[in-house]
Amino acid sequence: MAERLVVIGGDAAGMSAASQARRRRPDLDIVALEKGRFTSYSACGIPYLVGGEVGRAEDLVARTPEEFRSKQRIDVRIRHEAMAVDLDARTIDVRDVEHERSYSLGFDFVVFGTGAVPIRPDLPGIDAPWVRGVQTLEDAASLLAEAERSRCRDVVVVGAGYIGLEMAEAFHRRGAQVALVEGAPTVMGRTLDADMAVRIHGGLRDLGVDVRLGEQVERFEDGAVVTGSGRIPADLVVLGLGVAPASALAADAGVELGPRRSVAVDRRQRTSVDGVWAAGDCASTWHRVSERPVHIALGTVANKTGRVAGIDIGGGYATFPGVLGTAITKVCQTEVARTGLTEREAADAGFAVDVATIETTTTASYIPGTQRVHVKLVSEQGTGRVLGAQIVGGTGSAKRIDTVAAALAGRLTVTDLVDLDLAYAPPFSSVWDPIQQAARQIRTTPR
Amino acid sequence: MAERLVVIGGDAAGMSAASQARRRRPDLDIVALEKGRFTSYSACGIPYLVGGEVGRAEDLVARTPEEFRSKQRIDVRIRHEAMAVDLDARTIDVRDVEHERSYSLGFDFVVFGTGAVPIRPDLPGIDAPWVRGVQTLEDAASLLAEAERSRCRDVVVVGAGYIGLEMAEAFHRRGAQVALVEGAPTVMGRTLDADMAVRIHGGLRDLGVDVRLGEQVERFEDGAVVTGSGRIPADLVVLGLGVAPASALAADAGVELGPRRSVAVDRRQRTSVDGVWAAGDCASTWHRVSERPVHIALGTVANKTGRVAGIDIGGGYATFPGVLGTAITKVCQTEVARTGLTEREAADAGFAVDVATIETTTTASYIPGTQRVHVKLVSEQGTGRVLGAQIVGGTGSAKRIDTVAAALAGRLTVTDLVDLDLAYAPPFSSVWDPIQQAARQIRTTPR
Repeated sequence: MAERLVVIGGDAAGMSAASQARRRRPDLDIVALEKGRFTSYSACGIPYLVGGEVGRAEDLVARTPEEFRSKQRIDVRIRHEAMAVDLDARTIDVRDVEHERSYSLGFDFVVFGTGAVPIRPDLPGIDAPWVRGVQTLEDAASLLAEAERSRCRDVVVVGAGYIGLEMAEAFHRRGAQVALVEGAPTVMGRTLDADMAVRIHGGLRDLGVDVRLGEQVERFEDGAVVTGSGRIPADLVVLGLGVAPASALAADAGVELGPRRSVAVDRRQRTSVDGVWAAGDCASTWHRVSERPVHIALGTVANKTGRVAGIDIGGGYATFPGVLGTAITKVCQTEVARTGLTEREAADAGFAVDVATIETTTTASYIPGTQRVHVKLVSEQGTGRVLGAQIVGGTGSAKRIDTVAAALAGRLTVTDLVDLDLAYAPPFSSVWDPIQQAARQIRTTPR
Repeated sequence: MAERLVVIGGDAAGMSAASQARRRRPDLDIVALEKGRFTSYSACGIPYLVGGEVGRAEDLVARTPEEFRSKQRIDVRIRHEAMAVDLDARTIDVRDVEHERSYSLGFDFVVFGTGAVPIRPDLPGIDAPWVRGVQTLEDAASLLAEAERSRCRDVVVVGAGYIGLEMAEAFHRRGAQVALVEGAPTVMGRTLDADMAVRIHGGLRDLGVDVRLGEQVERFEDGAVVTGSGRIPADLVVLGLGVAPASALAADAGVELGPRRSVAVDRRQRTSVDGVWAAGDCASTWHRVSERPVHIALGTVANKTGRVAGIDIGGGYATFPGVLGTAITKVCQTEVARTGLTEREAADAGFAVDVATIETTTTASYIPGTQRVHVKLVSEQGTGRVLGAQIVGGTGSAKRIDTVAAALAGRLTVTDLVDLDLAYAPPFSSVWDPIQQAARQIRTTPR
C-alpha cells in the first residue's frame, strides 16, 4: 500500500508542503484536512475584502480544493477537523463537520499546518458573538455577512498592530464610524520604535478614525466597549491584539513546543517526533539577526516553511534559514515597513547600536508629486554591521525595505550600504537613496 | 601660505570632492573651475526639464556657486575653463570666458572632474548647429531656448539608450513629432538582453513615437536625417549615442588612461600622478561582478567617487569598491531597471549561467490596478551565485532591482534569494516577490 502523508490545515503552509511532496513523490497518498471551506487563500488580503477593494472571498483563493484534487491528486477534505493525533498508532481522529461523523485516518507522515488564532484577552464580555477575531477567510466571510445584515455603524478595533490598523481602515472604507483602542502610547508598538510609530498617527486621525492611545479595555458590554476613559459605542468589536500559534493539537500529541508555545522545529521543519513536520503560523522559527528562536505569523514564512517541509518529506533537501523580521503595511496613504531589529529589539538582543533617522523625498526633490519618507537605520557599534531599518513615508517608500533585508542576509555594514550601487533616476530616487542617506549619517555622526 | 586644492569641473564629482575636502581641511584653499554657468546640478533631470515636468533649469541645481562660496568657503569660478595642466610646475592655464582673459593658477592638489561628452559619430552634416548632444545643463538651457524660438515640430533622436529614450519622450511631451532611430534591432541594446528590451517597444509606439530599429543614419541634411531607409524630416536632431569621458585635459597632462580612455584611478580615486585625483564621468571604475575595469557615466557614481576623492584629499580614509552595473529609467509608463550582468555580459565575462524569466504582478493579483512585471535573473552555474537581473514592468516594478543589487554586494545565491525575507502585503507584492519567483524558477529548472 502507498505511504500516506496527512497535512493538517489547508492554507499556505500545509498546501505548500503537500504540493512540494507531491512533486517529488508521485506515489504518495496525500490527504489534506481543512476545518474551514477554503484552501490556500491570502489571509493578508482579508482587510481588502472587508474594505471592499476586493469583491468576493473567492478572489483571495489561490487554489481551490477541486484544483488540488484534479491537478495534484491531493485529497483535500474541507470541513474536516483533526481532533486528536496519536503519534504512536499513527492515526488521526477526524471530525467530518458537514456530515456530523467521525473517523480515524492512518498516516505515515504528518504536517502540522494549523495556523494561529487571534488572541482573546480574559475580559468580561469577551465571549459575546459581536467581539470578533478575523483570522480565517471563514471568519471574514461570516463577519461581512453579519455586517451587511446589521449595517453596523460603530466599530471598535482593539489593538493597533498591523491587523488592527488594516481593519480600522477597512471598516472606515465601508462607511463605519471607527474607534481604535490601544493600550500602548503609539500604534504598532511591537513593530516600530516609538519615534517612527508616531508618524503614523496623523494619517489615521485625518481619515477620521478615533485613535485612543494608552487606553485599556476593561470590559465589553452590549453595544459598547468600556475602557479606563469611558464607554465607546460598538455594534461590532474587532480584535487586533495579535495571534497565538494553534499548537494545542500538536502539544497534546506530545510534540515539543518552542517560543510562545509554537511547535518547535529544526531547519528542515522537522519537529521533535520522527515523521512529523510543522510549518507556518503554528511553528517556531529562527531570527537571523537576533539569533534567537521566535514565533512570527506571516504569510511569506508560511509559504516558505511549508515548501521546505514538503521538499524534505519528498526526499529532497531544503532548509529554512529563518526570518529577518521584515514586515510591511499601508495605513491610509502612509506606507510602513521594517526589517531586522528595531533599536529597542537590538538592545534587548544585547547589541550596542548606532542609529540614524533621516527625512527626505522618495524621488528627486524636483519631480512633481514627490513624497516625504523617513528612514531609521540601526547598526552595530564598532563593526558597523547593519541590524535593521524602519521606513515610514508616502507612496513609493516602504518596499525599499527589501534592500536592507538583502543587506542583512549578506551581513553588510553601513559602509557597504553607502557604497551600494542602488538604482537612481529622478522619478525613482534622489542620487543618494534614502537608505544610503541614513547610512551616511551613521558614518559621519561622531559617537 | 595655505595649500591649494583645485577642482576642475563644478558638477557632482568635483563639488562632492571639494565639499568633503573642506569638511576635513578647514585650512585648505579650495578653488573650483567650471566652464559653464551651473554647479552641482542633476544632469539626469534634464529630460524632465525638456519635457516640461520641471519648470526651470535652476530647479535642477542642488547648490549654487554662491552657496558654495558662502557656506563652504569654496572659491567657485564659473565660466572659467581649465585649458592645460602642468603637473610638474603644478599650474593650470585658466581661461576666464566671461572677461576674455587668461591666467595661471597654482595648486598643490588637483581633482579632474571633467565629466563626459556626447559621442558624435563622424558623419556628413554632424557639425550642423541643429544636431545636438544634451549633456550639460548649459546644453539643455540653450536647446530649450532655441526650441521655443523655432517651435521645432519634427525631432529626430539618434540612438535609443537611456538618454535617447528619455529625450524622445520629453520632446513628445512638448508636442513634437518624434522619430527615434537606432541601428540595433532593439532599444536599450547595451543595457538589456534583447528578450527584455523588446518589451519596451510597444509603449513607445503607443505613445506615437516613430521607432525605427535596425536603421543606420548616413548623414544629416538641412531639415532631414538620411538613413539607409530614407529621409526623416528634422527641425532638430538630438544625439543619444552615449558619452565618452572628457579626459583630454588629463591625458595631455600625462595622467594614465584606462578603459575607453577614461582617467585610470585606484580605489581611492588617485590617478597615476601623485596629488592628482579623478572622479565621476571622466574616470574609470571597477565592475564588482565582472571584476574588470570599466567606464560608467552615472550621477550616483560621480557623487560616490567625488566623495571618496575628497575624503582622501582631506586625510580621511574611504575607498570605492566599484559599480554593480545598476541602472533604472522610465519609458512612458514602463519602468526598466538592471543590475549586475546581463546574460550576454555574463557570457562575455566568462561565466556559465542559468537564466530564468518570469512574468507576474507587482502586487497580489487581486489588488485593483496591479501591474504586469517581467523579471530576468542570471546566476552562475554550479555555485548558484546571483550575477544580475533585469526588470521591465508597470509602476512599482523597477526599484525592486535594488534588492538584487544588495544581493550582489553580499554575493548571495539564488537559494539565498528564495529564502530572503522580503516585505509582503497585498498592495506591495505577491507572497513570493517577483524576484523570488525568478529565483525559484532557476532552482527548479533542470539544466
